Amino acid sequence: MIRGFSKLTKQDKIDWLVDNYFSDKEAARNVLETYLHSDPKRQKLHDEFIENTISNFYMPFGIAPNFLINGKEYVVPMAVEESSVVAAAAKSANFWYNKGGFKATVLSTTKIGHVHFQWAGEAKQALEHLINKITPLFHQETETITANMRKRGGGILGIKLVDKTGDVENYYQLEAEFETCDSMGANFINTCLEKFADVLKREVSNSAINPNEVEIIMCILSNYTPKCLVRSEVSCIIEQMVEGTNISPDAFAKRFAIAVRIAETQPYRAVTHNKGIMNGIDSVILATGNDFRAIEASAHAYASRNGRYSSLTHVDVSEGQFKFWIEVPLALGTVGGITSLHPMVKFAHQMMGKPSAEELMKISATVGLAQNFSALRSLTTTGIQQGHMKMHLLNILNQLGATEQEKQQIVKYFIKHTPHHAEVVEAFHKLRAGELN
Amino acid sequence: MIRGFSKLTKQDKIDWLVDNYFSDKEAARNVLETYLHSDPKRQKLHDEFIENTISNFYMPFGIAPNFLINGKEYVVPMAVEESSVVAAAAKSANFWYNKGGFKATVLSTTKIGHVHFQWAGEAKQALEHLINKITPLFHQETETITANMRKRGGGILGIKLVDKTGDVENYYQLEAEFETCDSMGANFINTCLEKFADVLKREVSNSAINPNEVEIIMCILSNYTPKCLVRSEVSCIIEQMVEGTNISPDAFAKRFAIAVRIAETQPYRAVTHNKGIMNGIDSVILATGNDFRAIEASAHAYASRNGRYSSLTHVDVSEGQFKFWIEVPLALGTVGGITSLHPMVKFAHQMMGKPSAEELMKISATVGLAQNFSALRSLTTTGIQQGHMKMHLLNILNQLGATEQEKQQIVKYFIKHTPHHAEVVEAFHKLRAGELN
Repeated sequence: MIRGFSKLTKQDKIDWLVDNYFSDKEAARNVLETYLHSDPKRQKLHDEFIENTISNFYMPFGIAPNFLINGKEYVVPMAVEESSVVAAAAKSANFWYNKGGFKATVLSTTKIGHVHFQWAGEAKQALEHLINKITPLFHQETETITANMRKRGGGILGIKLVDKTGDVENYYQLEAEFETCDSMGANFINTCLEKFADVLKREVSNSAINPNEVEIIMCILSNYTPKCLVRSEVSCIIEQMVEGTNISPDAFAKRFAIAVRIAETQPYRAVTHNKGIMNGIDSVILATGNDFRAIEASAHAYASRNGRYSSLTHVDVSEGQFKFWIEVPLALGTVGGITSLHPMVKFAHQMMGKPSAEELMKISATVGLAQNFSALRSLTTTGIQQGHMKMHLLNILNQLGATEQEKQQIVKYFIKHTPHHAEVVEAFHKLRAGELN
Repeated sequence: MIRGFSKLTKQDKIDWLVDNYFSDKEAARNVLETYLHSDPKRQKLHDEFIENTISNFYMPFGIAPNFLINGKEYVVPMAVEESSVVAAAAKSANFWYNKGGFKATVLSTTKIGHVHFQWAGEAKQALEHLINKITPLFHQETETITANMRKRGGGILGIKLVDKTGDVENYYQLEAEFETCDSMGANFINTCLEKFADVLKREVSNSAINPNEVEIIMCILSNYTPKCLVRSEVSCIIEQMVEGTNISPDAFAKRFAIAVRIAETQPYRAVTHNKGIMNGIDSVILATGNDFRAIEASAHAYASRNGRYSSLTHVDVSEGQFKFWIEVPLALGTVGGITSLHPMVKFAHQMMGKPSAEELMKISATVGLAQNFSALRSLTTTGIQQGHMKMHLLNILNQLGATEQEKQQIVKYFIKHTPHHAEVVEAFHKLRAGELN
């Protein structure tokens, strides 16, 4: 065990790590070193985002052009390590471009937080009475915290008492709703909630209620944001659906609809279906400096809200029209956090014309829908491996140490046939032995 | 709209983007440039992970030492952009080190995939009979695909027909179970499934079944892996729980247990509770080259498996003993994908002694549990903002353009009081005006 590690300098942390956990110390130091930013000041900025930073983890930063959303054209930034995600998004954007593009709408932007507390008193009316009486104080005493947010049109929307004694003994919540405008608002909400708890404690001791009967358990925002919801949609006549395939419009629309119906009813399929959607959404979330854990947790909980984990996208095929849409909670920020600090994040916001939080909600949901459209189109026509292995082929060849020329030859060799991993390895060894025809 | 974008060279892609979407073109080019790796060959490797790569997105790469898991000491690599995640993990690791550390167990490692198909025939027995007859062919005809996996002790565990006509008209599944050893196995599973579908189609046309009655919809692995499950646990006598707090052991254990009970019963709280767990898990997932979207989707679907979204961790306080544990599905790989390609990923694996997939499951689940322990400890004692703002303070000060000296002065100023955002800004301006006492 090492004590006081967090207080060591960065160099001392690296020295300790390399000395104790690496046999080739020179190589280990070298890797850390080559992944630092060349400008020490900028590196320091990245170091200070978190604790015990020793280097940078590179995620490829790619772009998907031609996203037409509500009539405006976007190039979307995507930070992701998985091959074929950016390709699938870009392909879908191209497909929908000349069919009117994507129509996206923000349905609501409310966020929620709670003061979780226990009250052991008998007459619930006494508690209700107290909360009603002190609610103006909750607002007044957070005025300095909420001042800037109110200037921007946000703030505390409402505070109510919720009786949860049916779930946990003596358990109540102060449930507060917030509008946080262009910021994600986590710090803002938590700071307000902790103040509410202070006020509650103080006012209980000033009231007829026995202070020993009230215990604050915790104050925390909820990352579950079903009231911060966005919808994106595409539609076309079904004849337009089959561009680039050799399948009939009716058959394709039917297969696509069944694939979505399967995801709506089968959790095993819905998880993978939604995972693909989140491939797209998270790539944008990461590139724009938002918190993908918050977005993931909320989206998947939303997918399970009716008691069975289900699809986030839906389809309607009727009267010759194909309509496909997503509804997903996305609590995003375009100011605060690392959005104005991380240079690549700033770059990402600039390339989209510095979108508001609502605009970013629309873009992100659209990329999720686009991703899902590409995935379902591949799955229900050629199968997923054809496209995926085409993209993944270079990774396998890099792993084998193939030269640029060898890579080109093998990509050409597999142009008509989808290889599995062992076939790529075999072809590579044949090529080196001069036996690849 | 730009056509044929994916076929442009990297430089042409950048030129097009900068020329069309940036006013300060010089600055935009410069940002992309400074975030490239200094070695063009290594940069090319990163470029080829995905499509349309134009630069790298830096995630801070931090380390959390002192994780004692099953008696072995680990320094855990964490790639994450959120402040206080690494600090919380490290704090929890320190806390449990002298209390026996973490005990982790892999409960199962089975993965699942499906051939989704429709069958319009009437006598279900005919289909069942056919599948039974051709099951040996599923195995035989995937032998070249499974050869390497079988050598390592894995492969296809079983294949069965599942009748889902109650959910979707004429809908059946071939459900196959796989063991993929140290690889995540997505390509392997999908390749097997597509082969199963080929065999099924061919054998249907060789049988008495009308081929028009069978339609393959899609073949795909499931990212839902409730049978690829790991558990991690800590325990101690409750007197040991209160180190560093001024609360009584009984009161603290009770508050902690109620906080978990709230997460078990309230989806609004469970989402945030599990989000915190995933802060820890995803940081390890990212640093080790695994796919966090797959892990997120599976974990949250698992959290909703009983019909109400609930906590992934649980607590038991009885007879003076505190026991706290997590059970979470984690389908991870330590070979394949980018694990042997990405230099920082290789570094991460090396610092943990090149763990097997099962060992990495144990480490990741443990970091999730550690994260949750720190969060609940803060939430139920000091409140979350005290620790978080301490960590986030530097981000705010960097945003304001504070010098190193100014940062030190303001950190010192807030040492006893947890500031909210506006207070930090105010203190900064006062400092510059010479009015901060």
